[in-house]
This record gives sequence, structure tokens and C-alpha cells, in this order.
Amino acid sequence: MEDCDLFDKDPEKLAELVVQLQESSKENPQSVPLQRADLRDAALECGFVELDEDYDILLRDVCIRAAKSQISQTDTDDSRIIQAVEALDDIDKNVNELSERLFEWYGRYFPELEMTGEELARFVSAYGSRTNVPEDHEMSEKASSSMGAELLFADEELLRTFANNICSLYDTRRYIENYINTSMGSVAPNLCEIAGASLGARLMSMAGSLEKLAAFPSSTVQVIGASRALFKHLRSRAPSPKHGIIFNNPVIKNAPWWQRGKLARALAAKISLAARTDFYSGELDPSIKEALDKKLEHIRQANPNPPERKPEAKPQGKGGKRRNRGRKKNKKSGGSN
Amino acid sequence: MEDCDLFDKDPEKLAELVVQLQESSKENPQSVPLQRADLRDAALECGFVELDEDYDILLRDVCIRAAKSQISQTDTDDSRIIQAVEALDDIDKNVNELSERLFEWYGRYFPELEMTGEELARFVSAYGSRTNVPEDHEMSEKASSSMGAELLFADEELLRTFANNICSLYDTRRYIENYINTSMGSVAPNLCEIAGASLGARLMSMAGSLEKLAAFPSSTVQVIGASRALFKHLRSRAPSPKHGIIFNNPVIKNAPWWQRGKLARALAAKISLAARTDFYSGELDPSIKEALDKKLEHIRQANPNPPERKPEAKPQGKGGKRRNRGRKKNKKSGGSN
Repeated sequence: MEDCDLFDKDPEKLAELVVQLQESSKENPQSVPLQRADLRDAALECGFVELDEDYDILLRDVCIRAAKSQISQTDTDDSRIIQAVEALDDIDKNVNELSERLFEWYGRYFPELEMTGEELARFVSAYGSRTNVPEDHEMSEKASSSMGAELLFADEELLRTFANNICSLYDTRRYIENYINTSMGSVAPNLCEIAGASLGARLMSMAGSLEKLAAFPSSTVQVIGASRALFKHLRSRAPSPKHGIIFNNPVIKNAPWWQRGKLARALAAKISLAARTDFYSGELDPSIKEALDKKLEHIRQANPNPPERKPEAKPQGKGGKRRNRGRKKNKKSGGSN
Repeated sequence: MEDCDLFDKDPEKLAELVVQLQESSKENPQSVPLQRADLRDAALECGFVELDEDYDILLRDVCIRAAKSQISQTDTDDSRIIQAVEALDDIDKNVNELSERLFEWYGRYFPELEMTGEELARFVSAYGSRTNVPEDHEMSEKASSSMGAELLFADEELLRTFANNICSLYDTRRYIENYINTSMGSVAPNLCEIAGASLGARLMSMAGSLEKLAAFPSSTVQVIGASRALFKHLRSRAPSPKHGIIFNNPVIKNAPWWQRGKLARALAAKISLAARTDFYSGELDPSIKEALDKKLEHIRQANPNPPERKPEAKPQGKGGKRRNRGRKKNKKSGGSN
């Protein structure tokens, strides 16, 4: 104890040491030789602190700093992507509402203009009043014979500012989308390859994190986002949902209806596998994609024609609302998966 | 008929003439000498058109143009203000949602920052990462000891863009508000003086137009915006609403509760009067404001203390949901107005 070098008495540096010590003790539980009481005695003995109270004050300060620094390291890559996905959804929703307002507002001045959404916002932001539409523009004829009201200068400025806002929201939307696509490639390369960047990010966002998504069974992955239909199915005779948000994957979206359940099951299985590979190894494994493609091709070839619908297999529409008290257990669901 | 000058055969100019003719015939119903059949004969006789069909084609074209030009003149000052009020509401709603998202998103990186809404957006837009906060900023101490996660460059750029969007929406909001204030002063000076620009515009928006607002009885003006409470009152024992959106006027908002019903009735009466004056004369009449002030002062002096609540005059809360089948007609409402 006599020949040791004393640490610097800066709480910031001491906190860093504490964090390092904690991490190394996680790896080698045997490597922590001193207990708390020993440390206190040692510190007093070496003259690192003079009084017991000084030690307490320093200990408190160091512990708070160490805890803060550990909290600040909890930010993970997947949580950043999840925030971006949620921001994207918010922008989507809000920019749609503002575009509708612009449509109604500008419609008073140029009702013949058949544009909505971003196209309309860009048009208003570029030209303002319909009298500014240049002659070589495709709308110039409609603009000159429009039955819309005259747009005063003050209103024109207002509409343009409003349209500019909408345009920049659309720009931000695209920016966030790019960010998600780029980040997904490095954070979850397999998930990105199997499900696509946007769907993969959305699955992570609905699961809560990549870790949680990796822990889900593939049957859960298959119906994430279809919770209403799932609980309706569990409660009553309604058919089980065949796909949740994974429906947005073109594999399922573009398939004929009788293949969708089977394709969704195969896709969900591989998404689940991909999420686990991403979470535990983090390296791209091309074999997952190959196996998926083989499986999908197999399903498509095995089910070329629509099956004949049995009368009891029909989707029951409003019937699902009836409480089904005498329901048999393990009843086969009406869905085709 | 022989010595008259022929009109130019341009449908645009003819349409203008038709509109002028219609307007003058509204003022002097006797001044239209020719019937349609006469005109057709005259046009053929003078050689203005050669065939009956030419006349039909020209007539159709002129009528469509005249109708369009009349439609384009239906845009009134009050309808422009109403559009602006509705856009303001949309922006309010959407900018709040986006601000909440920014609060959650940026909170991961600087949880100690106690800012929301516009303040937060301006802060993020100005500094981005908390490491950029200058030392003389009031938040600099919190920023240096924050337990927030580290903000990567890509995320910082994203957050700043997002915050910039929110800032410019707040700017537009302010711009629209100024527009409404300026326009209300010229379109409805009395309404603006009695109710305030924002409340006046909102009343017009909820009524549909200044004309409709002028046609409302003052009891309707008093409860515009409280339709749920009004119908609950009509349906059951619930007390009648004492004020709708006119509650936003500081006269009522800042008054003690027992004066509010009476003040609202007086204010509604003068708002109604102001709307009529604006719609039919359009000139500012200071006597309305004077009479209102006198009336309000009288109410305040006559009711200095809260009345003792009678047991049956209590607001009935959940009781209002019960259907009241045996309700007496002309029952005195529970409200104090």
C-alpha cells in the first residue's frame, strides 16, 4: 500500500476509472480485490482524503458521474433508427393534413388544377398566383381560363409561405428516409436485406428494439401490426390474420391472395432469423436470402391456382362481432396459412 | 336597329358586357329592352352572325365565360379570413405534434433541457448537439454535465433539419396571425374591436361567413363552440352552457365564475350587433364599444360577491347522462346567466 501511486483527485477521471473497473469486473469476477471498507481505510491511510466526510463527498460525486456516463452510453443504434421511424410517421401524418388544407385553400383560386400533396405544394411554391404560370407550362391554358377567384398579393405571399413549409417537410421526410436506409444497412444488414430497410425499421420500432424483435417467435413477427384482427380472431370466429405490417413487403403485396398466407409465414420465419443474426453476430449472411428465395419459389409453384373456397372458410365479416361462447378449442382458423 | 354599331365578336368582351348588363338590370329592372328572341333576330339581321347555329355556339361560349367570371367574383374578404383561421388551426395542431416528437427525440441527447415547443425548436436549430452550447448560455452548465447520449453528426443534422421545419411552421403561424389581425381591421372593424381579431375571425369561421354570423341571434353567438354542452342540456338535466368560444375573450376568461354567464350574455349581444353593423354598413361605430364597457362595468358592480349555491343548482356531472323523460318544459337552467 505504501509504494502505490495515488490517483488524480479529479472526480471526472475517477468516475471513468470506476466505469472501467465495473466493466472489467463483469468479465473477470475474481479481479476486484478491494471491498468498499478497505478502500476507505486505504484512502485515509495514504492521505488521499483527510477526513471520513471528504471521502463520502468524493464517493458520492464519483458515483453520480459514473452513473451518468453509463446512462449516456445506453443509446443504441437501433433506438436511433426507431426514433427516426417514429418521426417519419409523424411527418407523414402532419404533412398530409397540411397538404389537404393547401388543396382546399388554393382550390379557391385555381379549382381546375388537378394536383395534390407534394406536387401541389411545389406548384404553389413556384408560381403562387395562376397568373404567374408560364405559357409553356402544361397548366397554362387552364390557368388562363380558370374560374377561380383573383389571388391578392397578401394572400399569395401567405399561400407561398405555407406551401414552402410543406415542401420543406417533404424534403425532411425524404432526408429521414435516406437516413433510415443508410443506418439499417449497417445496424441490421440481414433484416435490411430480407425485409427491406423501411419495413425492417418499422418492425424494430413496433417490437421496441432489435433485441426484442430477435426474441419474438416468427409467428409473432408475421402478425405484428395486425393486433386488432388477431384479438378479434382470438375472441370470436373471425379468421386469423395472415399478415401484419409485413404485408408491405412486395413479396406479399404483389402475390395473389391464396399465396399470401404461405408467403407471409415463410417471410416472417426468415425475418425472425435475420433479426437474430443481426443482433447476435451483426454480419451479413447471404444464405438467409437464398433460402428465402428458394422457399418462396417453391410456394409459388406449389399453389399456382386459387383453391375453391369452402362455405365455412369464408371471411365472416360482421359475424365476427357476435360473441362465440361455445367455441371449440384448437379450431382450425379460416385463413389459408 | 340599322344605325347601331356592332359589338366586337370576341366572346371574352361579350361576356363582360353580359355581366355588366345583368348587374345594371338588377338595379333597374325596367332597363332591359330586348328579349332573347329579339336579340337572335337582330344579330341575324345585322349580319353579326350568319347562321342560327353560329349564334347558338357564340351564345353558349359567352354564357360559360360570363358564368366563370361571376363565379370568380364570389370570393369575399370574410371567406379569405375564414380560410386563414382554418389554416392557423391546422398549423397549430400539426406543429404541436411535431414539437412533441422533437422533445422526445432530442430528450435522448439532452434530457436536462427544460424546454418545449418553439423554444426547444429554436434551441435545437441554433445549437444542435449540446456540445455546441456556448459557455455564456444559461444552459451551458447543464449541457456539460448532461447524462444524455452522445449525438452523432448524422443525427445532429437530421435533428436540426427537423427543428428548422418546426421553426418555420411557427414563423408561418405568426405570419397568418398577423394577416388575420390586419384583415379583420378592414373587413369587420366593429367585430374586431368588440371581440378581438382572433376571436372575431373564429366566430366568422364557425358561423360560415360574416353574413351568417350577422344573422345569428345573440343567444346563438353566446354558445357557438359549446354545441356538445348545449345538446347535453337540451337532452337532459345538464346545465345550459354559459359561453362557447367567446370564453376566450379576456372579459370573460378573467372574470370570477359567478359573473361569467352575465358578462357572456352582454358580450354576445354586442358581438351580434357589431357583426350586423360590419355586414350592412362596414364602418366603425365606437358607440358599441362604449355601451359594452358600461354594461360590463354595471354587471361587475352589481355582482361583487359569489352567490350561495342552491343544492339543486349544482352542476350535475354524471347525472346528466341519465335520460330525463319527465322533464318539465321551460325549466330554469342551472347556469347563472
